[in-house]
Amino acid sequence: MKKSIFYHAGCPVCISAEHDIINLIGVENVEIIHLGEDRSKIEVAERAGVQSVPALITPNGNVLHINFGASMEDVKN
Amino acid sequence: MKKSIFYHAGCPVCISAEHDIINLIGVENVEIIHLGEDRSKIEVAERAGVQSVPALITPNGNVLHINFGASMEDVKN
Repeated sequence: MKKSIFYHAGCPVCISAEHDIINLIGVENVEIIHLGEDRSKIEVAERAGVQSVPALITPNGNVLHINFGASMEDVKN
Repeated sequence: MKKSIFYHAGCPVCISAEHDIINLIGVENVEIIHLGEDRSKIEVAERAGVQSVPALITPNGNVLHINFGASMEDVKN
């Protein structure tokens, strides 16, 4: 199965959601990307439709915004 | 594993997220509750922390609000 991608920015809401997603779908099925540490991925995430973090991109490309930690504008600043 | 509970209200955002969640975690791991059809569950969902639909309650009781379809106030009216 193609992996999902979980984008976050290290905020408490992000970390909590990361644990939940890993428990739900398995660590082997999701790539975790920290946009604060890997800023080159911010544009990739935005092109995929990510408007806030945490967000999960499913294997078929749908974006699930999960709760609300920070907007992408916050992440950039 | 204890099941997750997915609450929705039949809106397009809900249906899309339902498909994604079933694909991600498996239909056998999630109970689907349509609050428009089973209105007695609205109070249960609110007590669990659901503020909008679609939302997923994880086996350990965390609430993941996924995208935004409708507020619980909308669901009640």
